Amino acid sequence: MASAQAQSQPPAVPQTGLEARLAIRSGAWTGPTSGIAPGFVQGNLAILPGALASDFMRFCQLNPKPCPLLAVGAPGDWRLPSLASDLDIRTDIVRYRIFRNGELAGEPTDITEHWRDDLVIFALGCSFSFEDALTEGGIELRHVTENCAVSMYRTNIPTTAAGPFHGPLVVSMRPMKPADAIRAIQITTRFPAVHGAPVHIGMPEQIGIKDLSKPDYGAAVTVKDDEIPVFWACGVTPQSVVATVKPEFCITHYPGTMLVTDRKNSEFAIM
Amino acid sequence: MASAQAQSQPPAVPQTGLEARLAIRSGAWTGPTSGIAPGFVQGNLAILPGALASDFMRFCQLNPKPCPLLAVGAPGDWRLPSLASDLDIRTDIVRYRIFRNGELAGEPTDITEHWRDDLVIFALGCSFSFEDALTEGGIELRHVTENCAVSMYRTNIPTTAAGPFHGPLVVSMRPMKPADAIRAIQITTRFPAVHGAPVHIGMPEQIGIKDLSKPDYGAAVTVKDDEIPVFWACGVTPQSVVATVKPEFCITHYPGTMLVTDRKNSEFAIM
Repeated sequence: MASAQAQSQPPAVPQTGLEARLAIRSGAWTGPTSGIAPGFVQGNLAILPGALASDFMRFCQLNPKPCPLLAVGAPGDWRLPSLASDLDIRTDIVRYRIFRNGELAGEPTDITEHWRDDLVIFALGCSFSFEDALTEGGIELRHVTENCAVSMYRTNIPTTAAGPFHGPLVVSMRPMKPADAIRAIQITTRFPAVHGAPVHIGMPEQIGIKDLSKPDYGAAVTVKDDEIPVFWACGVTPQSVVATVKPEFCITHYPGTMLVTDRKNSEFAIM
Repeated sequence: MASAQAQSQPPAVPQTGLEARLAIRSGAWTGPTSGIAPGFVQGNLAILPGALASDFMRFCQLNPKPCPLLAVGAPGDWRLPSLASDLDIRTDIVRYRIFRNGELAGEPTDITEHWRDDLVIFALGCSFSFEDALTEGGIELRHVTENCAVSMYRTNIPTTAAGPFHGPLVVSMRPMKPADAIRAIQITTRFPAVHGAPVHIGMPEQIGIKDLSKPDYGAAVTVKDDEIPVFWACGVTPQSVVATVKPEFCITHYPGTMLVTDRKNSEFAIM
C-alpha cells in the first residue's frame, strides 16, 4: 500500500544539478527539464564521431551566438568535468535521439550500448539561462504565459561554414513592449555564453521571416499590436546544421530534455 | 601683413577642455563646440536663482535619464571644480541665452555683468558623449551624415514633477538598422551619466509622436525603409520644463555651444 501510494505521487522536483542528474540516471525523473534545478545551467547536447568533431568545434567557434560552446569532451570520454564532476553523458539525459546517416534511428533513455571510442560530446549553452534572468527582471515571456514552446524561425542569415557544416541561422522570437525589449537587450548582453544579446529586432522580413504566425519550429505565440518581435540566435541552429550534413552517426538530446549541469546561470553573467 | 594673414586663417581647433575654454574665454573660438576637444565631456547648462534651485535639483534627481546631473554649483559660485578646475561659467561659454519671466532677454557672449549672488549652476550630461562612443563603434549617425541637428520630439511620457517643474519628456531620435540599434543600446547602456540607454525603440505613435518627419526641435533626417527609430531621453527636456515655469531669471547655453569640461567621456563609461 505504502509503495503504491508513493508511486502515484509525482516525483519531487530536483533542486540542484546533481539531484537532477541522479533522478534522471535512476529513472525517477522522466519529464522535460524546464523548471528543474532552478538557477543551474542547462545545455544543448550534440555527440559526433571523431571524424567530424574538429570541423564542428570550429563551426561553433566561428558561430558563437547560435553555438555557444560550454564544454567539449575528449574523444571517447563520456565525462565533462568542467560542467559536472560526476556526469555520465550516456545515462544522465532523460531521452536521446540517435541519427544514422541523417535518419532518426531511435529515442532511447540510455545510450550506453551505443557508445563508441571516437564519440565527442558537445555541450552548448541554451536560452533557459537568459530566460531565467529575463523573468527575474520582470519581463513576461509569452511562450511561458501561453505554456508552449518558444517560436523559432529559419532566417536568411548564413552561418559561417566550417568543413561540411553550413546552413542558415535559426532564431527564437519573444514579443515585447519596446521598453521591455531595450531592457531584455541589456540583460541578455550580460550572458554572452548563452546566446547573449539579440541578433535582430523588429522587421522580421529583413531576416527572411515572412509570417511570424508560422514558426519553423516550436509554437506560434500572440504578438500584440504594441509589441515588437525580438530575435535571439537559437541552439536549434547547430541541430539543423548537423541534420543537413547527415553524419553516419550522431546523438542529440530529445527536445526539452536538456543536459543539467552543476554550474549556476549567475556564473555566466559577465557583470 | 603677417597679422592680417593670421586673422584670415580659421582658429586652431582646441584639443583639450582647457584649451577650448581658454579659446572661448579669449574670444578666439566663437563657433559651435561640436567636434572641439575631442573625447572631453560637454554639458548642457542651466543657471537658476537660488529660490528655484532645490526644486530643480530634485527634478533632475527624479528624472535622471533626461536630466543627468554632472555637477551643481554652490549658490553664487561661478566655478564647478569637479568638472574643470579653472572654470568661470560667466565667460567660458561661447554664447548664452538670458530669459526673464520666460522671455528671451539677450544672447550675450559673457554674463559677468548679469551674475547674482544667488545663482546656481547646473551642468547636465549631453548626448555628444555617447555619440562619440557610437561613432567609435562604427554606427552611422544620420544627423551627422546629413550635417544637421538631431531630430527631437515632445512625447506623451510625463516627467516626474518636483515643485513647479513638470512637463513631457523630450527625446532625440536616431534611425538605425536593427543590428546597429541593438549595438547602440549596448554602447549607450555603458553611459548612464549621459542619458544612458534608449527609452523607446520603434513604434513612435506609442510615445505620442505622430510624424517622424516633423520634429519639434532640430531637423528632420532620412529614415530608410530598413531602419528603426531609436529614441533617447534628451537634454532639451529640462530646457523645455524650465521654459514652462517662466522663472523670473534664468541663463542657459546658446544651442550648440556647450560647456566643455576637463573630464573624459571614457571616465563616464561604467565598463
